[in-house]
Amino acid sequence: MTMLQDRIATMPPAPGRAFASDNAAGALPQVLDALVAANTGHALAYGADRWTAEAEARLRDLFGPDSTAFLVWNGTGANVMALATLTRPGDAVICTEWAHIHVDETAAPERVAGVKLLPQPSPDAKLQPAQLEAQAHLLGVQHHAQPTVVSITQSSELGAVYTADEVAELCEVAHRMGMLVHMDGARIANATAALGGSVGALRSFTVEAGVDVISFGATRAGLAFGEAVVFLRPELATRAMYVRKQVNQLSSKMRFLAAQFNALLHDDLWIRAAEHANAMTQRLYRLTDELPTVVHLDAPQVNSLFPSLPPAAIEPLREWCFFWDWDVEAHQVRWMTSWDTTADDVERFAAGVRHLLATED
Amino acid sequence: MTMLQDRIATMPPAPGRAFASDNAAGALPQVLDALVAANTGHALAYGADRWTAEAEARLRDLFGPDSTAFLVWNGTGANVMALATLTRPGDAVICTEWAHIHVDETAAPERVAGVKLLPQPSPDAKLQPAQLEAQAHLLGVQHHAQPTVVSITQSSELGAVYTADEVAELCEVAHRMGMLVHMDGARIANATAALGGSVGALRSFTVEAGVDVISFGATRAGLAFGEAVVFLRPELATRAMYVRKQVNQLSSKMRFLAAQFNALLHDDLWIRAAEHANAMTQRLYRLTDELPTVVHLDAPQVNSLFPSLPPAAIEPLREWCFFWDWDVEAHQVRWMTSWDTTADDVERFAAGVRHLLATED
Amino acid sequence: MTMLQDRIATMPPAPGRAFASDNAAGALPQVLDALVAANTGHALAYGADRWTAEAEARLRDLFGPDSTAFLVWNGTGANVMALATLTRPGDAVICTEWAHIHVDETAAPERVAGVKLLPQPSPDAKLQPAQLEAQAHLLGVQHHAQPTVVSITQSSELGAVYTADEVAELCEVAHRMGMLVHMDGARIANATAALGGSVGALRSFTVEAGVDVISFGATRAGLAFGEAVVFLRPELATRAMYVRKQVNQLSSKMRFLAAQFNALLHDDLWIRAAEHANAMTQRLYRLTDELPTVVHLDAPQVNSLFPSLPPAAIEPLREWCFFWDWDVEAHQVRWMTSWDTTADDVERFAAGVRHLLATED
Amino acid sequence: MTMLQDRIATMPPAPGRAFASDNAAGALPQVLDALVAANTGHALAYGADRWTAEAEARLRDLFGPDSTAFLVWNGTGANVMALATLTRPGDAVICTEWAHIHVDETAAPERVAGVKLLPQPSPDAKLQPAQLEAQAHLLGVQHHAQPTVVSITQSSELGAVYTADEVAELCEVAHRMGMLVHMDGARIANATAALGGSVGALRSFTVEAGVDVISFGATRAGLAFGEAVVFLRPELATRAMYVRKQVNQLSSKMRFLAAQFNALLHDDLWIRAAEHANAMTQRLYRLTDELPTVVHLDAPQVNSLFPSLPPAAIEPLREWCFFWDWDVEAHQVRWMTSWDTTADDVERFAAGVRHLLATED
Repeated sequence: MTMLQDRIATMPPAPGRAFASDNAAGALPQVLDALVAANTGHALAYGADRWTAEAEARLRDLFGPDSTAFLVWNGTGANVMALATLTRPGDAVICTEWAHIHVDETAAPERVAGVKLLPQPSPDAKLQPAQLEAQAHLLGVQHHAQPTVVSITQSSELGAVYTADEVAELCEVAHRMGMLVHMDGARIANATAALGGSVGALRSFTVEAGVDVISFGATRAGLAFGEAVVFLRPELATRAMYVRKQVNQLSSKMRFLAAQFNALLHDDLWIRAAEHANAMTQRLYRLTDELPTVVHLDAPQVNSLFPSLPPAAIEPLREWCFFWDWDVEAHQVRWMTSWDTTADDVERFAAGVRHLLATED
Repeated sequence: MTMLQDRIATMPPAPGRAFASDNAAGALPQVLDALVAANTGHALAYGADRWTAEAEARLRDLFGPDSTAFLVWNGTGANVMALATLTRPGDAVICTEWAHIHVDETAAPERVAGVKLLPQPSPDAKLQPAQLEAQAHLLGVQHHAQPTVVSITQSSELGAVYTADEVAELCEVAHRMGMLVHMDGARIANATAALGGSVGALRSFTVEAGVDVISFGATRAGLAFGEAVVFLRPELATRAMYVRKQVNQLSSKMRFLAAQFNALLHDDLWIRAAEHANAMTQRLYRLTDELPTVVHLDAPQVNSLFPSLPPAAIEPLREWCFFWDWDVEAHQVRWMTSWDTTADDVERFAAGVRHLLATED
Repeated sequence: MTMLQDRIATMPPAPGRAFASDNAAGALPQVLDALVAANTGHALAYGADRWTAEAEARLRDLFGPDSTAFLVWNGTGANVMALATLTRPGDAVICTEWAHIHVDETAAPERVAGVKLLPQPSPDAKLQPAQLEAQAHLLGVQHHAQPTVVSITQSSELGAVYTADEVAELCEVAHRMGMLVHMDGARIANATAALGGSVGALRSFTVEAGVDVISFGATRAGLAFGEAVVFLRPELATRAMYVRKQVNQLSSKMRFLAAQFNALLHDDLWIRAAEHANAMTQRLYRLTDELPTVVHLDAPQVNSLFPSLPPAAIEPLREWCFFWDWDVEAHQVRWMTSWDTTADDVERFAAGVRHLLATED
Repeated sequence: MTMLQDRIATMPPAPGRAFASDNAAGALPQVLDALVAANTGHALAYGADRWTAEAEARLRDLFGPDSTAFLVWNGTGANVMALATLTRPGDAVICTEWAHIHVDETAAPERVAGVKLLPQPSPDAKLQPAQLEAQAHLLGVQHHAQPTVVSITQSSELGAVYTADEVAELCEVAHRMGMLVHMDGARIANATAALGGSVGALRSFTVEAGVDVISFGATRAGLAFGEAVVFLRPELATRAMYVRKQVNQLSSKMRFLAAQFNALLHDDLWIRAAEHANAMTQRLYRLTDELPTVVHLDAPQVNSLFPSLPPAAIEPLREWCFFWDWDVEAHQVRWMTSWDTTADDVERFAAGVRHLLATED
């Protein structure tokens, strides 16, 4: 029996929750309580109900009186709705090569919104202002799709966070070049938590930084389902309700979506939950960073780690407690925490990692 | 004070629930219980969970071993996903002028699925076999979009039900002409209830009649949200999972959708609930049919009435208990019942109608 | 031998040209001369050449200094480019049930421009202002595609001509409702000829009437190929060059397209040629109208007749000199003249018709 | 006066034709003669004419009895038609980062064909088999658009030519992975000339190598306008005629397109003309390669050079005789010859280059 097989055979107890994704978590109890509480009598469909009015008002409170929010089903739908609303035939969208809209949406932006994506290389899935400027040669040339939207992901698909200043600079360059800025905020809660944990922090890197439209992520933050598209200037939103319906994102019994939002946005629950998820990743980082066989990227900013592991250890560890590969050739995996990850989960997981990968025994 | 004003001022107590739509109803208690019960620990996202496996199996039990079911968000999404999966560039879809895909989906079939609709006139929103045959001149002519799918709505947008024989005849003609048949079953539960109230009845007008793909409606039947697209032959489903993602219909935390289905499909709850809704409409019909000022269409088959009313009475009646207009010029409205409409709701509503519209006082 | 067979066997000499379509005609000699003359040395591609500059200037002279013209390949391309430039997701286009965009473009408007068509019934393929107003109930409702463009065909697919006043009234209603007006001018030359035969006539029913964008038909008027899309207000044209390229309508060696236009527009050749085509149809009408077996619609305005004929005579007559069916069930056919139809063609054809169909012998 | 200014002031006589593009050339005289000769009487529209039948037969002779050819307007249209015919919702197309479909078609593939492009890096605009295999991880994953077509450009956008063996290997890998192979043959004539200059050479790298569909370029080869889409297996072509119409590529007076093809394909004129264009580039390469200030890529295979030049010389040289930039930052330009470039043009141009750039005076 090899040493690895021996270690596998003697793994400590597994955590109660795996580290696969914040999408693998359930819903916050307050959120489901609110969903159930909305099941009272009749309410007009398609958003003409009091729960939806409240959710729209809560989002307007977050993003200011010029903003308009539309509740939608899911993240791909939110992104496609935002892009379809902002673009016309012949338009292109600048993003990074890691962007969810580019990698993980089965060409929905191309086919449903009708845009071309212009993915840019990036080590941390963040876009740089110079990458916008480098597209200037496309502008005004009839043979090239015209970049009219910049889409950035906050926090990024590689767990990096744009500071408010970084967003502001991107917006400044984009607007100067005649482009609008879309923020894919699938994990905007984690970014908000990382940047101060307050509504003021949220505003600093969105409305105050000059962002034009946001996919406000709520499912990963703790809903059973539901996201929002928030237009930060009224003139951008005039056609949005038709686009929402056309891209299949209009819920009939919308109160069940809205009620969840109302619970999530109450008393900053969404920020508190994300702070917890981020903290669990910090803890996991600290508990595994000293292991020479676990090669982390930089210290985490939000709720994910992307460690490289010894190849032979990956499958045994995954079988013990599930997580996803990130880059198979680089033996890089992704460990992700969520609102319901417990300190005990983290400690058990780190204990298993140490058991399997520590070199000093 | 006029007689009408006098009657308005003395209306009896309003019902607890209005007659606006089955979309205005909430969710069945069993459905929400199941949704809440699914909120236990982690489960892999995007359908790799046990609730989804169970829901897919339950739908396969309904429609037979050759069928494949995909859970989706909403009815427009289900229809668009079905049509996009079955069609190619240059294709058209035959439907009636009343079809939801034509009237109420903000051109999603045209823009997202890329098909042309060929709406046919119909007094009851049912399609006739001769209307398919009349499109034969389009086939093989390069200037015309090619009709390759027939979309019928069961029960129809005007509350009519296709018998199993009628569906079979449409399928026979469609298949002979090289076309596939899509059934928009937004109210397939009500049709099943009307045609015998059993799984055998469902099968008789779907899989046994030759239908190719079904939008299986579940929201109106009692879910908080959720529909299914069911392909009845394996070869039609091979590309469907990519299309579901592309048309924004893939749920991340899919267990919350699947768990509802499992409750709805358990012990034929979906049929029982629809039988009740249908019965409430029957009762309302009987309680108002004798009034000469309320002109009904034929006796209802499912859960909706489309009466014509004296113009001056419509707004006062609506203010007392809400319902939607159907054809403003014809003074025709729609009264719709749902799984939660009570006998008391119906009796109170009929009493109000009689109070306002009876001519013999 | 029956009388019909006897007549068939003794038909007089057939015309040199059939009456199938103005698309069956060749190109005007002046047009091909100009095309050949443009084959001199090198010229920058994609329109950066002097022939294109001249053609754009000639079209600007026709439609005024606020207009912008784009040369394109064909009529479907012109229409799709116009509609794609003017619309956004969720938009619909009002037209008649006979509209070429609805009947004969293989769903290109739906799939490529992404619009829903709202075809209206019409006895003469002309749209009525009241038909626009009847769509007002769609406006502002999220479930309905929003009518934002009205597309009228001048002259219509049934050979009818809108007067300048009629166009102006449609434009007035459309604009009041927030819609733009597209004129499919596949046979705008024939309409111009019918309404006075001058550039002033053209202007009266286009720019002066309030039309927003025109598909300016030139192929049927005498080109080998080529049409133009003319935007009558600068702000409508800002994105048009990208759309032209995207919908595959940008010619590389554009001088060969532009040179033809320059010949066609020189000295009103396009109007003179259309006057001739119209006159040939008038002559054919006069020579066949007295036959009781040939049932014409109203006296022709442009270059087509839609007579109903004795069923048994249609195929023999077609074999002798080709034309297309229009409505098979009504035994209605279409006879069409073109710029090169001669008086001799017409007289021979009428002689054949009389030989076969005269009842008095 | 600087030495450069002095040289500019004393440039020798400029060539009669510039080196901008093979799209800047006119049409072969035989081609225009044939176009003019087709202007005789009436011919049924949309391809039901004898010229089109001949052109289709000539292309079938080139590519074998299983092939089916469709005449179209232009290169973008040919590519979009090919891709739209071969793909379904959720599909992606693998190409290089230099591919015309990616760089120069204003997102027509994305918006009109509805596909996602997966551009791969390449030093010579040729795709490598390993780059196909590297996409295998996308297959079968619902979150990713499915690569179902590989599009290669022959000769490539950087003037490189795939050998028959290289194409065969790409086809073998593609087919093994379940993908079809599209060849963008905008300059297929130049590649044919480079690979042997015979129909046999053409067949060796197309039908015999396993290619599935070809955009057969004819405009650059010497037409005024016109390309063809050739499907090499019958089952791929069954829907193509509807797609051609839908993507705006169906010519009404198609004889004027077909007649040109018939002249071009007669007696291998297209190959002879391309051989000449290639030879002119070879000559220009030899006449400028010894200059140390002109840094060529490898020896040219077809009709283009991509030299890097001293920055200060580019604009003066361009003003004297036009050409396009290729990579502004690298001071790289493109010199391109065409069927009508003369030896005198080349010698005059080389003389000017030497005059301006020679360092030894």
